[in-house]
Amino acid sequence: MEFSLIDRIGAATQLRRDDVLLGMGDDAAVLQVPAGQNLVMAVDTMVEGVHFLPGTAPADLGWKALAVNLSDLAAMGAVPAWALLALTLPKGDASFVDGFAAGFAELARPHRVALVGGDTTGGPLAFSVTVHGFVPAGAALTRDGAREGDLVMVTGSVGEGAGGLACLRQHGVLAQDEGAIGQLLSRVRRPRPQLAAGLVLRGQASSCIDISDGLLADLGHICQRSGVGAELDADRLPLSDALQTVFGPEQACLYGLSGGDDYELCFTVPAARAHAVQGDLARVGCSATPIGRIVRGEGVSVRDARGQWIDLHSAGWDHFAA
Amino acid sequence: MEFSLIDRIGAATQLRRDDVLLGMGDDAAVLQVPAGQNLVMAVDTMVEGVHFLPGTAPADLGWKALAVNLSDLAAMGAVPAWALLALTLPKGDASFVDGFAAGFAELARPHRVALVGGDTTGGPLAFSVTVHGFVPAGAALTRDGAREGDLVMVTGSVGEGAGGLACLRQHGVLAQDEGAIGQLLSRVRRPRPQLAAGLVLRGQASSCIDISDGLLADLGHICQRSGVGAELDADRLPLSDALQTVFGPEQACLYGLSGGDDYELCFTVPAARAHAVQGDLARVGCSATPIGRIVRGEGVSVRDARGQWIDLHSAGWDHFAA
Repeated sequence: MEFSLIDRIGAATQLRRDDVLLGMGDDAAVLQVPAGQNLVMAVDTMVEGVHFLPGTAPADLGWKALAVNLSDLAAMGAVPAWALLALTLPKGDASFVDGFAAGFAELARPHRVALVGGDTTGGPLAFSVTVHGFVPAGAALTRDGAREGDLVMVTGSVGEGAGGLACLRQHGVLAQDEGAIGQLLSRVRRPRPQLAAGLVLRGQASSCIDISDGLLADLGHICQRSGVGAELDADRLPLSDALQTVFGPEQACLYGLSGGDDYELCFTVPAARAHAVQGDLARVGCSATPIGRIVRGEGVSVRDARGQWIDLHSAGWDHFAA
Repeated sequence: MEFSLIDRIGAATQLRRDDVLLGMGDDAAVLQVPAGQNLVMAVDTMVEGVHFLPGTAPADLGWKALAVNLSDLAAMGAVPAWALLALTLPKGDASFVDGFAAGFAELARPHRVALVGGDTTGGPLAFSVTVHGFVPAGAALTRDGAREGDLVMVTGSVGEGAGGLACLRQHGVLAQDEGAIGQLLSRVRRPRPQLAAGLVLRGQASSCIDISDGLLADLGHICQRSGVGAELDADRLPLSDALQTVFGPEQACLYGLSGGDDYELCFTVPAARAHAVQGDLARVGCSATPIGRIVRGEGVSVRDARGQWIDLHSAGWDHFAA
């Protein structure tokens, strides 16, 4: 069983790459990393009832399983290449596998990701994807290069991931993707890894991370690794009309600061370079908004529209504030 | 939580490798594959209640999670280098993590495997390990090179994996590792990947696979990929004294043919080279036994001691016979 299920997914993703010397069907895959390139790799697991609601469409799960991993590659400025899939299924449900494979392939194909190996086992529904990509030697974006005075920027808009999840819980996993709520639902079902933005930021951003745990938490990781602090202006957060329409501006802001699942990039850039970076990102169809500044110290502080510091601790956000 | 748990495991495995440019703590790891080497990678998942019994010692799980993956690298003739761990835990149980990390590290250290990334999530106990290793370009052992007339050989002894599992079910996960039963228990708890043997077989074996599903099934994979058949002599199977003492010769033979979890290597080699290969393997402390021959046709056939073909289908083994 295991073999044919994973083969099914391999067949659905059908992609030839010259650097795949031996794909699925042996004890292991054999690959060729191009000369002059570093290999970048990440793994993420999604478990039913923890990372997604029971009844979620298999195609959305297949897409998202790959998307959250590609988002990690985006944050490193890497070009994706190969994936391995470990799929745990309650029973050998062919229709689930076909749906999952279709969603996985739909995202894999445009990014030229080849599925080179995997493992299907019986058990509670969960999947782990390992992705691999390349960056020119020494060019990976990391979390540890933020410096005092750098601007903090985010791509796209924040908060829709958390807003979408709230809609999903309220409207059910089968709700249709229409209107403002539809936009939020689509964001949580089919997040788009910011790979093109990551490539643009290579050699320009001083640090970068993808927003999976929430802006405050993830920027907190940058601060902690870089040995700096950050000050954000809440009223500069890029919040979509859809998010504000559905939840109102205050809740939208809360989602933007502390919600997860956005899969945008948060990065820092020397202030003098910010405008040029915005222009470069715009050329790949990606907006970027300055939302604050790196400062001496530690942790992330947030100012409200009147310039007052928001007390993140009393708001119960102490574990987000790094 | 996630971060510190996986950090804990990273700390326990503590190993510096020059080819790890950036290990844990960023969105992804950054690695350098040595020039002239192919990258070999595999993933395996283990789920509680499916691949191991509830109550199994965490250290044994940590060891085995890595061992079954290293066994895949052994079958390719690869030298291991890096691992990623996706650990799903019902709750953030520090003592489980410490035990798991200790067992993982105990096997990782002598093989110089660096844990370069991972992910800890809440959910039913399960783990997925992705391993990476190197082979000189073009030198990977595969399943597809077996040719008519080649001898079929196995390293070590077969059947102890299945025998050990039967003992575990009977004597409980906490039974002591003493005597013949202890030897079988230890085999299932702490399987030893045949990495040294894999290196010796590079350039010598015409095909190779590790025995995880059982000898018949795994040799069946070689036959299927190579477009050949195989004939085995049941009385030539290397069965340990411990296995025969505990289960008697007939059941021992059954375990040797169809039991899984042995993590020995099954390989084929041109007959003229078999003796030399045995000698080379002996020099790295590994025994190897010829158990049959590759023939024209398909599937695996087995002869008993009197030269009679065993009817694998009527024995209910039809899904093993490839």
